[in-house]
Amino acid sequence: MRVLGVDPGLTRCGIGVVDSMPARRVQMVGVGVLTSPAESSIDLRLRKIAAGIDDWLDEHVPDVLAVERVFAQHNVSTVMGTAQVAGIAMLAAARRDIPVAMHTPSEVKAAVTGSGRADKAQVQHMVARILGVTKIPGSADAADALALAICHIWRPSGAVQGGERHEMTAAQRAWAAAETAARRGSPRG
Amino acid sequence: MRVLGVDPGLTRCGIGVVDSMPARRVQMVGVGVLTSPAESSIDLRLRKIAAGIDDWLDEHVPDVLAVERVFAQHNVSTVMGTAQVAGIAMLAAARRDIPVAMHTPSEVKAAVTGSGRADKAQVQHMVARILGVTKIPGSADAADALALAICHIWRPSGAVQGGERHEMTAAQRAWAAAETAARRGSPRG
Repeated sequence: MRVLGVDPGLTRCGIGVVDSMPARRVQMVGVGVLTSPAESSIDLRLRKIAAGIDDWLDEHVPDVLAVERVFAQHNVSTVMGTAQVAGIAMLAAARRDIPVAMHTPSEVKAAVTGSGRADKAQVQHMVARILGVTKIPGSADAADALALAICHIWRPSGAVQGGERHEMTAAQRAWAAAETAARRGSPRG
Repeated sequence: MRVLGVDPGLTRCGIGVVDSMPARRVQMVGVGVLTSPAESSIDLRLRKIAAGIDDWLDEHVPDVLAVERVFAQHNVSTVMGTAQVAGIAMLAAARRDIPVAMHTPSEVKAAVTGSGRADKAQVQHMVARILGVTKIPGSADAADALALAICHIWRPSGAVQGGERHEMTAAQRAWAAAETAARRGSPRG
């Protein structure tokens, strides 16, 4: 399975493509950061980011697009642009019949570090280690996009839906707990 | 000038097309409400609304797309879907090289009723009266979309940028005041 992760943002939008391999291994296929100039109007910024997302989808043909679930109560000053970029990413996938999955920041952090409250440096460190590279190219947004893709590949869907909890790793248990907490507390979009 | 107004929403998205005529008159060209089923996933809902917006743009070929400026602090439970639909509407316009204008709800209310704090019934009543129709078809979202288009046509752009204030109508003065207030208080997206 190939997953394209999108860490949405109007100024910087992280993109990471990860393949799932046998024995729970994951392999980085590509990573990058799309940008748009702050001095442009929002419509032209969205068009530039959307064109970049289209290019990534067309080049890498993922099985799933994983995008960060954005909550309205966080980072009020930038949340509207973030929501809009998440929207155009979901639209680009839907128009190609690529399924979309959403994961909360806590779920992503838990999946790659074992803790839903890990900081950016921990996430970057663990993403590089999981993918077997010394350093993730680009900014923290690139690592976050790869983390989203890894989170989706490792999601304990069977376990969360009941049963087989004894087979979960520590990271998967943290992930499941974060997901449950997010479901309880999340506003409906 | 032909303006296509969009009152963004995931469940109901109002669309209204208005032409400007001589002597500050305006004429309704078309009005409707796009919907998407609440039980669908967000990506498929966005795809359905986006297809509808594309159809309206292709059929009516507006000179400008006017969309409501969405603020993060209002209506937290639905604001993310609203922001995402506003984003895909702006993207659809940008891809056709149609300029996008954003107006706050206060500006729109002030433009059509003379008060930035008018209620939905007042807006619906005044929009019908301005357009010379007995009733706006569809829900309040349809009237709001038409109000956005009228607001854009009547925007006192010269007056707001300095000079000619003596030529402003009462509604234009209210509009200018609402815009100034919104500029002071608005978070940057």
